[in-house]
Amino acid sequence: MTSTTRSAATSTPSQSRRAAARPAPRAGRVDQAQMRSANMGLILRHLRAHGGRSRARLAAETGLSKATMSSLIGDLAERGLVREGQLDRAGTVGRPGLTVDLDGRRVCGVGVEINVDYISLAAVDLAGSVIRESATPIDVPRLSVEAVLDRVASLVNRMLDSIREAGLMVIGLTVSPPGVIDYDAGAVRFAPNLGWRSIPIVSELSHRIGPDAPPIHLENDAKLGAVAEYATHASDGVDDLLYLSGDVGVGAGIIAEGQLIRGWSGFSGEVGHLPLDPEGRQCGCGRTGCWETIVGLAAFLRLAASEDDEVHDPSRPLEDRLHTLHARADAGDERTLQALRTITDHLGRGLSILVDVLNPRVIVLGGYFAFFGDYLLEPLGAALEARRMDEGSGARLVVSRLGMSSTARGGAIVALETVFDDPTLVGTAHISPRG
Amino acid sequence: MTSTTRSAATSTPSQSRRAAARPAPRAGRVDQAQMRSANMGLILRHLRAHGGRSRARLAAETGLSKATMSSLIGDLAERGLVREGQLDRAGTVGRPGLTVDLDGRRVCGVGVEINVDYISLAAVDLAGSVIRESATPIDVPRLSVEAVLDRVASLVNRMLDSIREAGLMVIGLTVSPPGVIDYDAGAVRFAPNLGWRSIPIVSELSHRIGPDAPPIHLENDAKLGAVAEYATHASDGVDDLLYLSGDVGVGAGIIAEGQLIRGWSGFSGEVGHLPLDPEGRQCGCGRTGCWETIVGLAAFLRLAASEDDEVHDPSRPLEDRLHTLHARADAGDERTLQALRTITDHLGRGLSILVDVLNPRVIVLGGYFAFFGDYLLEPLGAALEARRMDEGSGARLVVSRLGMSSTARGGAIVALETVFDDPTLVGTAHISPRG
Repeated sequence: MTSTTRSAATSTPSQSRRAAARPAPRAGRVDQAQMRSANMGLILRHLRAHGGRSRARLAAETGLSKATMSSLIGDLAERGLVREGQLDRAGTVGRPGLTVDLDGRRVCGVGVEINVDYISLAAVDLAGSVIRESATPIDVPRLSVEAVLDRVASLVNRMLDSIREAGLMVIGLTVSPPGVIDYDAGAVRFAPNLGWRSIPIVSELSHRIGPDAPPIHLENDAKLGAVAEYATHASDGVDDLLYLSGDVGVGAGIIAEGQLIRGWSGFSGEVGHLPLDPEGRQCGCGRTGCWETIVGLAAFLRLAASEDDEVHDPSRPLEDRLHTLHARADAGDERTLQALRTITDHLGRGLSILVDVLNPRVIVLGGYFAFFGDYLLEPLGAALEARRMDEGSGARLVVSRLGMSSTARGGAIVALETVFDDPTLVGTAHISPRG
Repeated sequence: MTSTTRSAATSTPSQSRRAAARPAPRAGRVDQAQMRSANMGLILRHLRAHGGRSRARLAAETGLSKATMSSLIGDLAERGLVREGQLDRAGTVGRPGLTVDLDGRRVCGVGVEINVDYISLAAVDLAGSVIRESATPIDVPRLSVEAVLDRVASLVNRMLDSIREAGLMVIGLTVSPPGVIDYDAGAVRFAPNLGWRSIPIVSELSHRIGPDAPPIHLENDAKLGAVAEYATHASDGVDDLLYLSGDVGVGAGIIAEGQLIRGWSGFSGEVGHLPLDPEGRQCGCGRTGCWETIVGLAAFLRLAASEDDEVHDPSRPLEDRLHTLHARADAGDERTLQALRTITDHLGRGLSILVDVLNPRVIVLGGYFAFFGDYLLEPLGAALEARRMDEGSGARLVVSRLGMSSTARGGAIVALETVFDDPTLVGTAHISPRG
């Protein structure tokens, strides 16, 4: 965001109340090349946030001189990151210029979600379009870690090949493992629902993907889900969004004031472990009484069907099993309906805590919660409404429209951040992208 | 923050993991004057965040040309917002320039806290120094709203006079009332601990302060406390801070990724109303079982002493009463110590929820919690540690060093934001400030 954009933004009521955002002092020398790449990133972010516009308008809005702007746009175009299209008549005095747009044909990010029973991949280009997507069922708990990583690497390589054949460069890979992440080590410290401990995912995957592996980072599924959902809601002017993942584990991804809130060491949103079960069931994390033991997928399946029921069969794809349960609810099956009511009650208690703490504009229910949105949304909305203290500031409750793909999509979007941070990472070597 | 600073910041581990901060699209035409004032604000923020430096270094770090920088610095100096001091030899090639610093002698912000039993005022200048401070005992619940507002206006006017006599301009006034704020109406919607309902504080105070009243805004005490505490912690590189106010009411102020998190309608941090009391006591807010009914000041006093005890006498200043209780605890009085233990237990349960949701680096205990820090910090720290799931990412628990002044100081800092948003609000008319 540029200085001028920031200034304009302060005129909105929500932002004028915003207080001192004081960055930690990080003085230091900045050389010419760093400045140039930073300003190129600034232009890319401006285009992403505000859409295509002319060089003259970009110059006026960013405060960069027209000469500098022309040089930077030329550089970005040579790297295949922007392209010039139709006439832009808005925003500046004088003759209209050609619109500069983000170019989606050169680079993309890839996201990978390793879940308990599926592996999901997505590739998103610089212009924000999803260009590849796949979901593969897998029974992770029955496989060795090695077998799972082999499978992931082979799926990734297949997608990388297909993307590279189309002339795009993969700038980075964000992998979301189903467990607690050790960010510094690039490892899963502990995956309670899989029994994984201290698995160095980044190095193991790099090795398996081979010498052409893009840089790999790990990120939590709920945070990535929030990023993906936010990309679909930001155009509505929503700046405060809470995403709730609904799986065996339950986590929250928090977007506040337009920014992903990670917490100081990356452990924000660990809401599945809030102490909300009065009966204090044992949780995989070692604590007792965790919220996910009463609202997670395992709790729902346990409530909805007896042990020998087909919906517990891990060899059937989860989506099929959820369809079975949804059909039962539609047919008026009392046990399924009662299970949904119980889940709704527990969900409401936890969500109302999150509303008190964060005051989000939108709450997006993901995972299996989204699947049963037609049963959950109304009573949950009523429960939140009943507890609301202040008028006119309730959260809008919606279900994810991205389904199982949200984590992978968010991972792809996050991987692309590298380009916005430093566009010069993408070389100027000429390739002929196929449109 | 400038483009170059942002770029440098992304090299830190915490920030490189940060994802898409995508501002809501707010396209629009920006004229020359807006651009100029936005860049002047940029320079002021840069100086606040990084300290004094030469024009050449400012130009290099912000990406503005040296000529533009000189012109903008000249303009800022004429407005009395920056001044040039000693030689700066760091950061750039060539001969050293004079250091440009924020000038504290021209403008200040004023913060006012209306609490149940005191009114606190603070004035902070542009350089961040507290230049005036006062605290006045008052028994708000026994007085009419009019009498309270009369008292506030007279205290404010006394401080405004003294500041103006010293040659400073008061750029704004932030008032923190002890209740739920209607931001759009500039009113207190409901103050459960005072019985106030729909009091239009902004207009009532403007009227009483008179024609020279600076612009008045309302803000929540815990949010302002967080801003004030953050100003003292930001230099340690802390970007994620949680401030917990400890009064009859309990609220949280959240700083995440260096920014005050207000929630979409300003109602973040309403943690005093988390449903954490298993006995479900009635709360002033209308709900039952709210956290503040078991950890707030009233709960502590009730636990610590019988009804006829002197510590319940509202005519004695709160600080005296807290001193009495602290002395009893120091002398080994079992009832006081047991009260502190009970409060600690309940505090620990609520704080662990906030840690799970927000993963703050620092938790600052304010209000009466700070007063009893020597009793609370150690057991609370141990309780949080016991529930911590991830290694090496616990929150640092500290007590506020600002005492009763934190809300008022935060209000003064927030009031100053106006100048950082648009420095041209401060005219160039020549006054001779007395140093």
